[in-house]
Amino acid sequence: MLKLRRIAIDTYHENVAFLRRDCSLYRAESFQALGKIEIYPDHGGATASPRRILATLNIVDDALLLEPDEIGLCEQAFDLLGLAEGAAVDIVQAPPPQSLESVRDKIHGETLSEEQIRHIIEDIAANRYSKMEIAAFLISSASFLTTAEVLSLTRAMAGVGATLEWAQEQVVDKHCIGGIPGNRTSMIVVPIVAAHGLTIPKTSSRAITSPAGTADSMEVLARVDLSFDEMRDLVNKEKGCLVWGGHVDLSPADDILISVERPLAVDTREQMVASILSKKLAAGSTHLVVDIPVGPTAKVRDHDDAVRLRKLFEYVGDQVGLRIEVVITDGTQPVGYGVGPVLEARDVMAVLECKPHAPQDLREKALFLSGKILGFDPDLRGGTGHERAQEILDSGQALAAMERIIEAQGRNTTPPELGRLTHEIPASADGVVRAIDCFRIARIARLAGAPLDKGAGLELFKKMGDAVRQGEALYRIYACAESEFRFATDMAAENNGYTLS
Amino acid sequence: MLKLRRIAIDTYHENVAFLRRDCSLYRAESFQALGKIEIYPDHGGATASPRRILATLNIVDDALLLEPDEIGLCEQAFDLLGLAEGAAVDIVQAPPPQSLESVRDKIHGETLSEEQIRHIIEDIAANRYSKMEIAAFLISSASFLTTAEVLSLTRAMAGVGATLEWAQEQVVDKHCIGGIPGNRTSMIVVPIVAAHGLTIPKTSSRAITSPAGTADSMEVLARVDLSFDEMRDLVNKEKGCLVWGGHVDLSPADDILISVERPLAVDTREQMVASILSKKLAAGSTHLVVDIPVGPTAKVRDHDDAVRLRKLFEYVGDQVGLRIEVVITDGTQPVGYGVGPVLEARDVMAVLECKPHAPQDLREKALFLSGKILGFDPDLRGGTGHERAQEILDSGQALAAMERIIEAQGRNTTPPELGRLTHEIPASADGVVRAIDCFRIARIARLAGAPLDKGAGLELFKKMGDAVRQGEALYRIYACAESEFRFATDMAAENNGYTLS
Repeated sequence: MLKLRRIAIDTYHENVAFLRRDCSLYRAESFQALGKIEIYPDHGGATASPRRILATLNIVDDALLLEPDEIGLCEQAFDLLGLAEGAAVDIVQAPPPQSLESVRDKIHGETLSEEQIRHIIEDIAANRYSKMEIAAFLISSASFLTTAEVLSLTRAMAGVGATLEWAQEQVVDKHCIGGIPGNRTSMIVVPIVAAHGLTIPKTSSRAITSPAGTADSMEVLARVDLSFDEMRDLVNKEKGCLVWGGHVDLSPADDILISVERPLAVDTREQMVASILSKKLAAGSTHLVVDIPVGPTAKVRDHDDAVRLRKLFEYVGDQVGLRIEVVITDGTQPVGYGVGPVLEARDVMAVLECKPHAPQDLREKALFLSGKILGFDPDLRGGTGHERAQEILDSGQALAAMERIIEAQGRNTTPPELGRLTHEIPASADGVVRAIDCFRIARIARLAGAPLDKGAGLELFKKMGDAVRQGEALYRIYACAESEFRFATDMAAENNGYTLS
Repeated sequence: MLKLRRIAIDTYHENVAFLRRDCSLYRAESFQALGKIEIYPDHGGATASPRRILATLNIVDDALLLEPDEIGLCEQAFDLLGLAEGAAVDIVQAPPPQSLESVRDKIHGETLSEEQIRHIIEDIAANRYSKMEIAAFLISSASFLTTAEVLSLTRAMAGVGATLEWAQEQVVDKHCIGGIPGNRTSMIVVPIVAAHGLTIPKTSSRAITSPAGTADSMEVLARVDLSFDEMRDLVNKEKGCLVWGGHVDLSPADDILISVERPLAVDTREQMVASILSKKLAAGSTHLVVDIPVGPTAKVRDHDDAVRLRKLFEYVGDQVGLRIEVVITDGTQPVGYGVGPVLEARDVMAVLECKPHAPQDLREKALFLSGKILGFDPDLRGGTGHERAQEILDSGQALAAMERIIEAQGRNTTPPELGRLTHEIPASADGVVRAIDCFRIARIARLAGAPLDKGAGLELFKKMGDAVRQGEALYRIYACAESEFRFATDMAAENNGYTLS
């Protein structure tokens, strides 16, 4: 038997085990070439124990790191196995997960059954796939997935995590497919809808490739890492919430898939639809508004593409009993003025407080989406959703609802400040702003330190159609750390993302 | 700047870098989610330095492992960067390699140009791809590769490593696509062909998923990890060699691809052809015999499949100027008696020494392949290749050539012994051996410890068509270590791989 040791390395969603090259029990190298090992408590054998994990093996040549009679596990694998340090464990060479056979079928062009897809997703959720196996699954299904397969994938992903159940018959939600900086409508829509009285248990992601996710911006104002139970209690009381989905565990398979999709930059429409709808299903939603921004630097670049995506959402939604309204919106430029958590939270509060300088595009878009959601309310007269949303916002009821939600989640009493390193990017000539590259703006804000430095980001002074003079500031970069400040200003000097004419 | 530190972890062909979560210079977490970082000496910036590597980032939470102002590199990344410990280095967030755009094109069903494929292979050879990116490339090209793409892939893989050049006009080689235990013909063919006077610079692989590669068996007799220069000098003197390809660096991209293909168990015909022919091209071969064993448990399971594969070899061979003769052979059962390095080396020497108990199937197959290769010699009368091979073998010239090659490579003066733990597997009933499962036999031998324990493996007493009595031994398992011995005997007890009737 081997003694278990925790190795304080965070391998980012991959189970890694460590054995000494001169391990006193096993020949480490013979395990390594074949991929993975299975680790289980030393009683009853691998198959008898419910507690067992698969891990990729790294070999350690350093006597300080590990003893020859020990097996090390990276942080996530250690937590997953759930045994104490020093526990006796044993290992066997792990055959690849059975469901990898189905991935091979998919590679060879076959269509998978609902059961095959369910097994794949169950194995992924149980961390039985290495990152390269996950990549194999993603790529094999990137070339084609039938609509039936998308449906199976959605059901399978919704099925492996926790599921929320609500007393209310109608549970609404909204989702934006992303890609537009500053687009923080959820933080306005949720309080409007909750103030109206509909239940809207909103979970959001943190940014992975963007400068801020809704969870990052909300965290400027309140705690967002609520547990499953806390979230349920809060929504029962306040009708709405704005929490981070990562702690709620609604679609663990999706979180793992995303950890491979993002660095590979492969996210197909089909995978996106399954990912989004599985989370909504698990959250117990019955009605959903999906926002697809279209623009030359958005995720979806033309109207035809957006319509195809809309139909896929509608098909899967119908099959799983989720009523979906897809709206195609303007994604030609960032929404609001701020890009980055603190700056975006500031925009949101300005809208909720009905300040005269509040960004009108953010206000209008939030009202539009709220109107669509309120339209789901059977008690509301047809066609009056937008009007009702405006009434709630302008009367201060939305602000009051937001304050209650902030209190209930736990107000951030030491809100982060804006970065103190600032630099303004000037227009190179007189002209009118003709285009703003969403991708470039996001990249500069991210280099400046967003979202981890919550006070980092960009404050836009000019939007499309605005006239500018040579030397006038287009936007200001905020950063908290010297190195990030340098990365961002260098990137903006090279290409600031604005096109003038 | 960060100080460089070597972390004594072998990550098996993947560059991994380590930063403390509380790194004093950078926010480690912001780098992690996006995949890779680029590491370069702290002068001149990333693009100015020729010495720079890409690595996946792991985050360290252990103060003993790394200081906050240090960056750790795993063994292979450290060697690749080639700087001393303590050297000042800097990092930037690395965009994915440009050529990954072409992988995405391939995912979307496009055919890639020779240039696109060359860039992908160059980036892979330079360790710029993570394992999941390599998986993405392999899977995207597993669904289809045109013959033109196979050709491009072959040329690209041959182009990125070292290349051998020979004074001789004719340089011959042989290759078996593998999958048949005990099939050690190369160790007989090379001395026959060299004794005849043709140049045959044979490089072989070590076993990855099989119980022995030619390099593993040859290592029982002699040193095989020769350098590029040593190999060239040796072949110029002795006409032939039997060395491990891993040190000769003839197709570094292929070695990396294989480290992902094997655990994923995706090796398509197209990738196999490109892999084999690129190595032969780089080795300077002009004439090649390819052995495709066909059998129900071999890699190629029917004749039609073998013919398709033959044609692909011929097409690519013709285009790259390699004269190829493909032979389709009997792959229904293991060749020879021994499975595992020591046992296979023993079979080989028995054939070369013309011992009466030498395995006749191994002798006949080696003579058949040698005859085909000798047939390439323009000075030999048509149709006399096999006869000439037999003459060389039976006269002891082949044995003498083998002894010279062993001496020149460096004789193993402390040859490994057979494993001392043995167990015989008895027939369950009277009958005749109808089938032997190559895959199962390989798996049992491997579990017994082969190829790392050179003395581990299986000695077969019965082959197809042999009559057996109940309780009579079918084969004997040899192992060197208790745990492996147990794994192998358990596996054999469950299913011994023999079908009797």
